[in-house]
Amino acid sequence: MEIQYILEIIGTVVFAMSGALAASERDQEQDWFGAAFIGFVTAIGGGSLRDIMLGSYPLVWIQDVTLLYIIIGAVVLSGVFYKWLLKLRRTFLLFDTMGISIFTIVGMEKALSLGASPEIAAIMGMFSAVMGGVIRDILTNEVPVLFRQEVYASACLVGAAFYLGLDYLEVERNTNFISSVLLIACIRLIAVKYNLSLPKFNRQQRQP
Amino acid sequence: MEIQYILEIIGTVVFAMSGALAASERDQEQDWFGAAFIGFVTAIGGGSLRDIMLGSYPLVWIQDVTLLYIIIGAVVLSGVFYKWLLKLRRTFLLFDTMGISIFTIVGMEKALSLGASPEIAAIMGMFSAVMGGVIRDILTNEVPVLFRQEVYASACLVGAAFYLGLDYLEVERNTNFISSVLLIACIRLIAVKYNLSLPKFNRQQRQP
Amino acid sequence: MEIQYILEIIGTVVFAMSGALAASERDQEQDWFGAAFIGFVTAIGGGSLRDIMLGSYPLVWIQDVTLLYIIIGAVVLSGVFYKWLLKLRRTFLLFDTMGISIFTIVGMEKALSLGASPEIAAIMGMFSAVMGGVIRDILTNEVPVLFRQEVYASACLVGAAFYLGLDYLEVERNTNFISSVLLIACIRLIAVKYNLSLPKFNRQQRQP
Repeated sequence: MEIQYILEIIGTVVFAMSGALAASERDQEQDWFGAAFIGFVTAIGGGSLRDIMLGSYPLVWIQDVTLLYIIIGAVVLSGVFYKWLLKLRRTFLLFDTMGISIFTIVGMEKALSLGASPEIAAIMGMFSAVMGGVIRDILTNEVPVLFRQEVYASACLVGAAFYLGLDYLEVERNTNFISSVLLIACIRLIAVKYNLSLPKFNRQQRQP
Repeated sequence: MEIQYILEIIGTVVFAMSGALAASERDQEQDWFGAAFIGFVTAIGGGSLRDIMLGSYPLVWIQDVTLLYIIIGAVVLSGVFYKWLLKLRRTFLLFDTMGISIFTIVGMEKALSLGASPEIAAIMGMFSAVMGGVIRDILTNEVPVLFRQEVYASACLVGAAFYLGLDYLEVERNTNFISSVLLIACIRLIAVKYNLSLPKFNRQQRQP
Repeated sequence: MEIQYILEIIGTVVFAMSGALAASERDQEQDWFGAAFIGFVTAIGGGSLRDIMLGSYPLVWIQDVTLLYIIIGAVVLSGVFYKWLLKLRRTFLLFDTMGISIFTIVGMEKALSLGASPEIAAIMGMFSAVMGGVIRDILTNEVPVLFRQEVYASACLVGAAFYLGLDYLEVERNTNFISSVLLIACIRLIAVKYNLSLPKFNRQQRQP
């Protein structure tokens, strides 16, 4: 439990940083408030949407104010070190990948504990992981990350299915948690490194 | 009841297809996962928003996992036959029109059964019908359909008012349901065929 | 209580007008339905999001249908007098400023009464005030107002903190309410008049 809480906080921190740095990655100026607002929404958006869809109240960040201060701390760190962090994009990709990996399994376990069926729980895990980033992209008028990076949410779904499989085989829960998180991270990193993509749904002639 | 469930499934199928084909209609390449994600969100978005606003839990698709498999099936069919379906846009307009017509009345009846006032129930019916498409357009960074096709959500509201009127006159419920669905569909199809539009709110000089 | 209800209605009216006129301010044609839809969503969006996040049902406009008619009235007035209202942008800025000022404190008090911690209540107040406009901008595919006008949501947060401070000092509630509303309005108007902005989070070289 202790370890899981630490992992959740790591996930929250990297999502808050990813939101705060979103404008900088697109070479746009931003003030501190805007960075904090986007960081906050990115960090809490996915989990909030999951809990609202499941009717699970109170929302996590409303119950546990500590998360708010952790997010503010992450945004401040992002502002102080943003040049350095932007240069570390490769490492940041690792952090962001850890974020979606952890949030997928945490979100799925929460949905299961609330009585959701396995299929719905897997979708809820994926939503927890990716919807914060989707909301960030909508607020900043970007094409959502889902449609730019092809192996992203799909890696979350694969990891969620893997967890459900091991759970069915009665694998011990902490082992299962860590294996599934690592699987999602590996799929994502391998897909990015080797530029893998999913099969095309359609093949259009595009104007050159 | 049997017939209504079938109609709801038809509505879900056409919305899932409309979401899955959205990128193809704009000549953009898309992978299978993206198509399925958008199809899913288009199919469940309007009803989920309605139920969240009314505080009605569990959401329909969370309770009835069948809908999830129907959506997946609709997306797969869309991918296999997408060239054919795109050519059938005219027919598809008919399908999409049936979708918003059915969802308006189904959504309004649900809101009424939860104790909403008639005005609010009419708005909830319209939201059920159009918000899936609006969320689809927001996620794909398009101008929402509401602001492109003028007689669209307004047709839903007219049909909802018509249903409320017949209900007040104690018309039998199934007759009322079918008449109102047909009315919405007719208004929409006639408006598209004759290129009708609503009165302008403002008249601007636009740059040529 | 009487005065607070009147203030809430004033806030609802100015937000409905701000939504209805959004397209006109960008020199876009719009029909009556589109204007009414955007006006409605702008007026009820922020408060609805707050109540959904807090799990507080029924939503205010679902319980009190009067608000719906007030919004429709405000949209009709906007359409009849839109040329005049667009010329009055400066005054309108004052109205809009009153809108966010009132909604911040009303929203925060509601969150406090539902047991939220002070920090969360301040965020909920800010969300009530600004999220209607953010949803309006997302629906019309604009960059959200938050990221265009720098001292906007931040003024709401400062006013919310001020209210909490006076409340801690046991200042009488009506005095506190009015002082905090006026503080938010003053900060906003001074910031606009003197073109003040918050410190930059990042300093990019922008292409000229």
